[in-house]
Amino acid sequence: MDSARFNRELPLRSVRVTDAFWKGEMELVRTEVIPYQWKALNDRVEGAAPSYCMRNFKIAGKMNREKREKGEAYEEPQYTFRGFEATPEDPEHLKDEFYGFVFQDSDFSKWIEAVAYSLTQHPDPELERVADEAIELVCAAQQEDGYLDTYYIINGRDKTFSNLRDHHELYCFGHLTEGAVAYYQATGKDRLLHAACRFADYIADYFGPEEGKCKGYPGHEIAEMALVRLYEATGKERYLNLSRFFVDQRGTRPYYFDTERHEYDRERPQRQQKDGLRYEYNQAHLPVREQDEAVGHAVRAVYLYSGMADLARLTQDDSLYAACEKLWNSIVNEKMYVTGGIGATHLGEAFSYPYDLPNDTAYAETCASIGLIFFARRMLEIHPDARYANVMERAFYNCVLAGMALDGKSFFYVNPLEVVPEACRKDERKAHVKAVRQKWFGCACCPPNLARLVSSVSSYAYTESEDTLFVHLYMGSEIAKLVNGKRAEISITSAFPWDGAVTIRVRAKGSALRLALRMPDWCEDCQTEGLEGAQAEEKDGYLYIQKEWTDEDTLQMFFQMQPRLIGANAKVREDVGKAAVVRGPIVYCLEERDNGADLHLATLDVEAEPKLADGEICGVPAKLIIWPGFRKSKTEEENGALYHTWHRAKKERVELKFIPYYMWANRGENEMQVWTNAE
Amino acid sequence: MDSARFNRELPLRSVRVTDAFWKGEMELVRTEVIPYQWKALNDRVEGAAPSYCMRNFKIAGKMNREKREKGEAYEEPQYTFRGFEATPEDPEHLKDEFYGFVFQDSDFSKWIEAVAYSLTQHPDPELERVADEAIELVCAAQQEDGYLDTYYIINGRDKTFSNLRDHHELYCFGHLTEGAVAYYQATGKDRLLHAACRFADYIADYFGPEEGKCKGYPGHEIAEMALVRLYEATGKERYLNLSRFFVDQRGTRPYYFDTERHEYDRERPQRQQKDGLRYEYNQAHLPVREQDEAVGHAVRAVYLYSGMADLARLTQDDSLYAACEKLWNSIVNEKMYVTGGIGATHLGEAFSYPYDLPNDTAYAETCASIGLIFFARRMLEIHPDARYANVMERAFYNCVLAGMALDGKSFFYVNPLEVVPEACRKDERKAHVKAVRQKWFGCACCPPNLARLVSSVSSYAYTESEDTLFVHLYMGSEIAKLVNGKRAEISITSAFPWDGAVTIRVRAKGSALRLALRMPDWCEDCQTEGLEGAQAEEKDGYLYIQKEWTDEDTLQMFFQMQPRLIGANAKVREDVGKAAVVRGPIVYCLEERDNGADLHLATLDVEAEPKLADGEICGVPAKLIIWPGFRKSKTEEENGALYHTWHRAKKERVELKFIPYYMWANRGENEMQVWTNAE
Repeated sequence: MDSARFNRELPLRSVRVTDAFWKGEMELVRTEVIPYQWKALNDRVEGAAPSYCMRNFKIAGKMNREKREKGEAYEEPQYTFRGFEATPEDPEHLKDEFYGFVFQDSDFSKWIEAVAYSLTQHPDPELERVADEAIELVCAAQQEDGYLDTYYIINGRDKTFSNLRDHHELYCFGHLTEGAVAYYQATGKDRLLHAACRFADYIADYFGPEEGKCKGYPGHEIAEMALVRLYEATGKERYLNLSRFFVDQRGTRPYYFDTERHEYDRERPQRQQKDGLRYEYNQAHLPVREQDEAVGHAVRAVYLYSGMADLARLTQDDSLYAACEKLWNSIVNEKMYVTGGIGATHLGEAFSYPYDLPNDTAYAETCASIGLIFFARRMLEIHPDARYANVMERAFYNCVLAGMALDGKSFFYVNPLEVVPEACRKDERKAHVKAVRQKWFGCACCPPNLARLVSSVSSYAYTESEDTLFVHLYMGSEIAKLVNGKRAEISITSAFPWDGAVTIRVRAKGSALRLALRMPDWCEDCQTEGLEGAQAEEKDGYLYIQKEWTDEDTLQMFFQMQPRLIGANAKVREDVGKAAVVRGPIVYCLEERDNGADLHLATLDVEAEPKLADGEICGVPAKLIIWPGFRKSKTEEENGALYHTWHRAKKERVELKFIPYYMWANRGENEMQVWTNAE
Repeated sequence: MDSARFNRELPLRSVRVTDAFWKGEMELVRTEVIPYQWKALNDRVEGAAPSYCMRNFKIAGKMNREKREKGEAYEEPQYTFRGFEATPEDPEHLKDEFYGFVFQDSDFSKWIEAVAYSLTQHPDPELERVADEAIELVCAAQQEDGYLDTYYIINGRDKTFSNLRDHHELYCFGHLTEGAVAYYQATGKDRLLHAACRFADYIADYFGPEEGKCKGYPGHEIAEMALVRLYEATGKERYLNLSRFFVDQRGTRPYYFDTERHEYDRERPQRQQKDGLRYEYNQAHLPVREQDEAVGHAVRAVYLYSGMADLARLTQDDSLYAACEKLWNSIVNEKMYVTGGIGATHLGEAFSYPYDLPNDTAYAETCASIGLIFFARRMLEIHPDARYANVMERAFYNCVLAGMALDGKSFFYVNPLEVVPEACRKDERKAHVKAVRQKWFGCACCPPNLARLVSSVSSYAYTESEDTLFVHLYMGSEIAKLVNGKRAEISITSAFPWDGAVTIRVRAKGSALRLALRMPDWCEDCQTEGLEGAQAEEKDGYLYIQKEWTDEDTLQMFFQMQPRLIGANAKVREDVGKAAVVRGPIVYCLEERDNGADLHLATLDVEAEPKLADGEICGVPAKLIIWPGFRKSKTEEENGALYHTWHRAKKERVELKFIPYYMWANRGENEMQVWTNAE
C-alpha cells in the first residue's frame, strides 16, 4: 500500500455547494427533515409513534442530578430487562423509565450530525441554539465515569456491556462520536466532542487486548469508523488502537457473543433457534481478514467494511485492505441492485447469496446504500479508482435519493425495484415492501441517516491529496484548496444529473494543483475543451490534469448522456430477458400512473429510438424518457381461463414513459418496475 | 338442482383395476407405503421422528382399563396444556403421556383407510389381521360415553371440545369415521364403524342447533364429509343433520372461535397478533353461502367444500351448490397451478390472492390437491361436467403423483413448479421447498393421504347413476354394474397416460346401460370406432352412448396426445413470456440432470417440432419429450460484471429434454422448472 497516494475528504467548510440539484436536496433536509426530526425526537409529531429519544436523555439527566445530590447514599438502579423495544403500558402516564428501542439515543446523534453539516453550508443561529441546548441535555445524562447510554443509565448500570450482540451501546457510542466530531468541525464547539471523548476513554479502559479487559466488540458496527474519526479529530492514538482492537477481535474463536447472556433470545426464542447464522448476521463468523463474501445485515456489514478501510489506510495494513477489496468485489459483482441498493432479503435485512437479487422482495435499505457510500469513499481514499466512485454515484442518485419523497416529508426504508401494491398488501412475504413512503418510523434510522448524508454530499464529491483535487461526483461547487502554500480556487458548474456538460473554472496562478476528474463508467463518449497546454493523463478512470494555471483557466467536459439499456449478468435469474433504462447516473423506472397497470406486460423495443423529454414530477423538473415498446394484450384470454393452448400474445405498440427511479411513488400508490422485458 | 341426474361413486368392490400405470402406483402403496406407515405409527422406523400414534392409543386404553377397574373412585385426569406438539423431554424414558401433534390419532385413521381400499383390490389376510389388531387397540381407548380422542383422554377430559379452532378433535373424528366406513365397506367388519358411530353420537349429543347444545364447528374441516359418509353407510339421519349443522353454523356471527380460550395463542403470541385473517384461515370468516373466493388453509378449504358439495347433493340445497360452484371457479380460474397444485403461499399453507401463483415459493401441498380431487368428484356427482373431471385428472397425474417418489419410499409435502437447490438452502423464504423428497414427516399428513387416494383411484375414475356408467379417468379396469336388473360388464384397456387409445368392451346384452365417456379438454382430436348403430351425443364434455348392447361390443377411442405448449393467463405475472410443455394429462418439466444447470436460460422454440421419445426414469418407463430451443450463453459476460450495456444474449440451439413433472427429483438433488421461456 502506497501511503503517498492516499487522499482524504475535503473539509466541508472548504466547499460551497452551489449546485441546483443538490442544493435542492440539501434545502429539503434543512427546511423539512431537520425540523421535523427535532419534533420527532421530542415526541411532538402528532400521529407518529413517539421516539422518546430526548425524553430518555432528560430522565437519565434527572437521575444523574439526583445521584449527585444524594451523594454516596444513592443506590444505582439494578438492571431490569425491558426488551429490545420498550413501550409504555399506559401512554397517558409515562413513568421515569426508558422507552423506545435500545438504540434510541442514536436518533439524537444522527440529527446533530445532520445539523452540523447543514450549518457549514447554511449558517442558522437559531438552529445552532436549539442544537446547543440539546447537547446540554445529552451531556447532563453523562455519568461521572464517562458512560453515556440512557438505556443502561435508566435501567441499571450493573449490566452495562453485558449484551454487546443486541444492545447497541457501542453503536450508540459510535453515532454520538460521529455527531460530536461533525458538530465540532462545523461550529468549533467542543462540548459534545468532550463528552464523546470521555465516553470513548471509558470504553477504551473497559475493552482492549490487555489482560483483564473485555474482549468483546460491537454487535452493530459503526464504532470502528467513529473511533477513527475521533482519532483524526483529536490525534489521540488510543482511539485508533481501540478501533483496531474491535476490528481485529471480531470473529475470533471462541466467539465472544457465545459468552454473553442474551435476554433477547429468551424473549424471542424462535429467532435464536432458526438463526443458525447469527454470527454471519453480525459479520462475526470469521476474523475479518478471512471474510471474502459480504454477508449478514447489510447496514452492519458496510459500516464494518468502512471502518476496516479507514484502518487499512491509517495503519497501512495490506491484509486488511485486501479483505476490503474482496468484500467490495463481493458486493458490486454479485450482490448489488442496479440502483445501488444492497441487502436482497428482509430476513435479517441482509445480503442474500450471490446473484440472488429479487426485485419485488428486495430489502435494499436506504441506510445500507448510505453505508455503501461510506465504504466507497474510504476505498477511494486508499486508491482513487473510478470503480468505487461509479458505485458511489449509482447509490447516491438512485437508491439513496429514492429513500426520501420529493417534498422531504416521507421516507422509504425499503427500496424495491418492482412493486405491485396489491401484492404488498396481500402477500405477507412482501409485507416489508411499501408502495408509498411513510411519515416516520419507530425505528428511525433511514430518514436521519439520509439527512446527514445529503447534508455532507460534498465530502463524497471531493477528496484531496496534498496537490490533487479529486472530483468524484459532478455538482456545482466552489472549492478552495492550498497547494504548495498557494490558494487554488476551483469553481464547478454543471446541470448534473440531467445534462453532461461540466464547466470547471480554476484560479490557481502559481499553484501546483493537479485535478483528477472522474470519467464515469456510463459515459462512452466524453469531449473535453480547454486542455490546451495541459498534461492530461487517464488512469483508473480519472483524467489527471496538470498545467501552468493562470487565474482564468476554464475546462469543459461534455459527458454524453444518451438513454441506454442495461442488462444484468445471466446469473441473476430475476432479470433474464429484461433490461433497465438508464441515462447518465440515473436509473429509470416505469410507473402505473404513466403506463397503466400490469407493467409486467410491457416490453421494450430494443431496436427503437428513445426520446428524451423535459418533464416534472410533482413540480420537480426531470428528464423523462419515452422508449417505444409493446404491451401484451390481456383481453384475448379465452373466457378468462387460467391456462390455454400457447399462442403468441397479441401486442400493441406503445410509448413507454420512464421516470427517474428516485422519483417514484410521489404521485400516490401505484405499480412500479425497473427491469422491463426487452426484445 | 335435478336430483335425477345425480350420480355416485362406484363401490370399490365393483371395480377391478387392471391398469398397468395405476396398478403400479397401487402396488407401491401396498408393498411400500402401507407397511412403512405401520412401522412409523408404531415408532419403529429408525432415524425417523417417532409418531407416537399407536402408543397414544395404548396409553389411553390402559387408562381406560384402570378407570374401569377402579370404578367410581377413579379420578379423571385434569386437563394439562401440552402444546400443539408434545415431545418427550427425555426420549429414552417415555412417560404415560400424550406425545406428538394434537392430531396424531388421524395417522391411524388414514392408514386403516388405505388398508381398506387396498384389501378390496388385493386381499391380504395377514394385513387384515394386523389391521384388526390395530382396531382393537383403538377401540380399547374409547370412553364409556363414546368419546375417542387420545389427546384429551390422556391429558384430561375436562377440556374436551374447549379449543375447536386448533385442537383437531373433530378432525380426528372425521378421519376415524372415513377409515371406519372404508374398512367396513372393504371387509364387512363393523367393529371400527361401531366405534365411529358411538363417537358420532356423542358429538351429535354435544353439538347442534337445539338449545343448550354447543354451537361450535371444526377448526380443521373433514367431519362434514365424513358424517355424510357415515350417514350413507348407516342411514342414520342424525349424522347428516350434524354435518349440515356444522356447515350452516360456520362463519356466523358472533364468531364461535372468539368464545374459546386459545392456549395456542399464548404459546405463540406472535401468530395471534399477525394473523388478522385467522378466520379466513379456517374458512370461518363468513357463512359458507356467502363465500365466493377460496381462501385460507388450502387443505381445510377443499375439505369443507367437499362436505358442502355432499350436502348440496343430498339435501338438494341450491344455495349451497351455488356457493360450491363459485368456490370451484375461484380455485380453477384464479388459484390453481397448471399441475393441479393449490395453495400458493406457505404462510398458512394457504391460497394467495387471485393470479398470485409463484413457481418457486409455491406451497401446493400434496394433501390440498388430494382434497381438490375430493371436491371435484363431489361436484361431478351433482353434475357430470368434464370441467370438474379435467381438473381432477390434472391433479391426479401431476401434483398428487409428484408427492411420492417412484420407489414409494419418500414424499413431498410441498410441490413447487421451479426449484433451484441453492435457493432452497440459502433463502429462508424458500425453506419450505425441498429439492428432494423426505422419508417421513413428523406431521405425516401427505404420505398416508396419498396412500388412501391412490388405493381408491377407481372411485374417482368412475361414478354411476341408475343406468349410466360415467368414465372420468381412463384406466384399465373391469367393472360390473346392474342396470334394470341385468348385469353389465365393462372392460376397459388403455395405456394412459402415455397413449391415447382406449378400448372398451361391453357385455351387456339386454341391459339399458348408458356409457358416458369424458372427452378430455387437452384432446383436440378424438377418433371413435365401434359406434355403428349407437346413439352418441356429446354434452358437457361427455360422450353419452346408448345402444342395443350385445355381449361382444367393442368401442374404441383414440385421444390424440401430441406434445403441446400451454400458456398462462396474462394476469399470472410469474408465467408471462413462458410456456409449459404438456402431453395428454401429463405436465412436463425440465431437470438439470438432463439439461444442465441454469434452466432459466433455456428458451423453447415455439415454431419447432417436438419429438416424443420412449425413456425411463429410475427404471420406470415414460414418454419423454424433446423440444428444440435455445440456451442463452453465460460465458459472454464482460469480466463477470453484474451489469452491462444491453445486448442480445448469444444463444445456442439445444434440444430441451422434458420429463413428466411427477417424475422429477428421483435422480438426486437438482434444478427443475415447469414454466420455460418461449419465443
